[in-house]
Amino acid sequence: MRRANLALVLGTIASGPRSRAEVAAGTGLTRAAVSSLAEQLIAAGLVVEEGPAAPSGKVGRPGTALGLNPAGPGGLGAEIGVRHLGACVVDLRGEVRGWRRREVSNHGREPAAVMADLAHLLHEAVAESGLRPAALTLAVPGLVGGSGGMLQRAANLGWQDVPLAAALRPALRTAGGGLADLPIEADNEANLGGLAERWLGEGPEDFLYVSAEAGVGAAIVVGGRLLRGAGGFAGEFGHVPVHPDGPRCACGAHGCLEQYAGEAAVLRAAGLTGARGDWVALLADRAGVGDPAARAALAGAGTALGTAAAGAVNLLDPAEVVLGGGYARLAPWLLPAMRAELAARVTVRPWSEERLTVSRLGRRGPLLGAAVRVVRAVVADPGPVG
Amino acid sequence: MRRANLALVLGTIASGPRSRAEVAAGTGLTRAAVSSLAEQLIAAGLVVEEGPAAPSGKVGRPGTALGLNPAGPGGLGAEIGVRHLGACVVDLRGEVRGWRRREVSNHGREPAAVMADLAHLLHEAVAESGLRPAALTLAVPGLVGGSGGMLQRAANLGWQDVPLAAALRPALRTAGGGLADLPIEADNEANLGGLAERWLGEGPEDFLYVSAEAGVGAAIVVGGRLLRGAGGFAGEFGHVPVHPDGPRCACGAHGCLEQYAGEAAVLRAAGLTGARGDWVALLADRAGVGDPAARAALAGAGTALGTAAAGAVNLLDPAEVVLGGGYARLAPWLLPAMRAELAARVTVRPWSEERLTVSRLGRRGPLLGAAVRVVRAVVADPGPVG
Repeated sequence: MRRANLALVLGTIASGPRSRAEVAAGTGLTRAAVSSLAEQLIAAGLVVEEGPAAPSGKVGRPGTALGLNPAGPGGLGAEIGVRHLGACVVDLRGEVRGWRRREVSNHGREPAAVMADLAHLLHEAVAESGLRPAALTLAVPGLVGGSGGMLQRAANLGWQDVPLAAALRPALRTAGGGLADLPIEADNEANLGGLAERWLGEGPEDFLYVSAEAGVGAAIVVGGRLLRGAGGFAGEFGHVPVHPDGPRCACGAHGCLEQYAGEAAVLRAAGLTGARGDWVALLADRAGVGDPAARAALAGAGTALGTAAAGAVNLLDPAEVVLGGGYARLAPWLLPAMRAELAARVTVRPWSEERLTVSRLGRRGPLLGAAVRVVRAVVADPGPVG
Repeated sequence: MRRANLALVLGTIASGPRSRAEVAAGTGLTRAAVSSLAEQLIAAGLVVEEGPAAPSGKVGRPGTALGLNPAGPGGLGAEIGVRHLGACVVDLRGEVRGWRRREVSNHGREPAAVMADLAHLLHEAVAESGLRPAALTLAVPGLVGGSGGMLQRAANLGWQDVPLAAALRPALRTAGGGLADLPIEADNEANLGGLAERWLGEGPEDFLYVSAEAGVGAAIVVGGRLLRGAGGFAGEFGHVPVHPDGPRCACGAHGCLEQYAGEAAVLRAAGLTGARGDWVALLADRAGVGDPAARAALAGAGTALGTAAAGAVNLLDPAEVVLGGGYARLAPWLLPAMRAELAARVTVRPWSEERLTVSRLGRRGPLLGAAVRVVRAVVADPGPVG
């Protein structure tokens, strides 16, 4: 009960600084109980006094506002991309306090080598932040399921059946800095991007988040929560059939969305097959200066994205479709074709083009989501503090 | 608190007859509290004594098993189909106690005329059952949203913006029998069919229920609950694009699933354009005697259903896909092609053909779901009884 009340008080403070009286009013706890719980949270380093609360118009001594402690435990996020690694530390308030990103081609590399690079990056980000992380969440471009963060398959990395936590831990031990004993979880990058959109954006409770890095993924958020599916594999939007008789996909099927809107397909359509480096930046640069091939390739990708999104909208009735990840940067050239498809194909329910939006977080979404998930878990259950 | 405890006791009894001691053990309430609550539920006509409980191996007087009262309040379901009307009464245990179905072509008919026929059918079903219904749920082949059971659009009936409860109530008043004052709710037939599958079948917590009458619909069940979407319009599976450049659909888009697996499309493919009466029975009869055109038409529909279902599986990761409604009867000829498509297109996660199943409830599903929903609501909240 005390633990539940600690979480209740901390959750209230997490919505914005407030006085003990305001916390009491918001939680239904007595003033005395709130004061006692607040002392414990302060002693545990989770909460700080922020100075006088805003005047409430009430008579009496002005209260002191309580806020989440920006020097308290942090959230550590990590990201393994096909062409980059990332590390991020956020404080309890969700502010970014450490950020590292390194371009490195990870396709076909041994997990141990990738983890060694990632561990160094994490160490640097933590050092920059000055915070002590409570746990680590790892974002990966693949299917994560079962216990222990088992990466079942990441086609674009060429990885299969990699126990992510077990693979990262020795590298963290070698890198030093006390990170090796952190709890480690892993999740699909689109899932974490979708959660970031929900947590840091001002999105609705029900939306479809569509993103791309090397592959195409989605997160389905229903009632503010991620729809994970019976086996944890929901969101494989890149393998929704768009043209059933279309080109063969790496997955073995024909005409999957990824064959029209994934990296290789869009580069090929733009006449850039084999281009190296950041495909999103390359296409954005070309389309930005009016390159007709790049623009046509992105319009074609937008049409395919719109067709698949229309099917998902007819099936799921989300309030919004949010374009995130690499697609957010390419949105100026994807949106017109996507909007046209959605308008033509979502006809049996209310729909308007304002329901297709672009993520403000863009490609930072999955890594931010990974880090913020850690601090949200701390706030939701501060545990037996004090 | 007393109301919540009444629901707790009633819910425990609803899982199967049990003694007061078993209810106490299952709920954590004291024997004395259970006895008092049981007396109130018996007095309210919701619960009956069923005779000696099964011996539990415990010393002492054998308990008397408590069960839901089969003479208690009933659930009244109604169904408006394009070619039929239906009425069903179930008792608190979910047993069918009254059943009426009448073939009648409702396309383009005035709602008032349809409601008059339906009211007579409901009256007959209630008289047959000998029960007093607690409420009425109406299943319709269209989009139901907003308050008061507003049917926004039912293309196959030719109806738009029909306030269903308000339209049915005067007909119930005219038909007599005291049904006019019942609470009335309405829902999409596929939603109710999916819920029936969950409640009466032995299905998993996460599945996609696909059904057909005149149109093609689906219900998405996640964690045992219906996914309704932001506006209540989820499940429009018939308008998932299958071939984006395919024939124009009544909805205005091109190549929707309904253009390959809906009534008109399948009849046309079977050389039966304009056939009257029950299309499902007609095709089942023809295919059953080996008619090649009927079999080819159903195989084509199965392929389209499999393509669209594969996209939904990749997106949602359900434990099963359940074929219900008219499709359940046509399953012998739909399944092989559907299974082939699913096997070819669901490749990024575990899948096996046993995950595609056929509803045992078949075309009775939506009407059963409508009636059972009423008694489940009574059990979930018996209200201020006694």
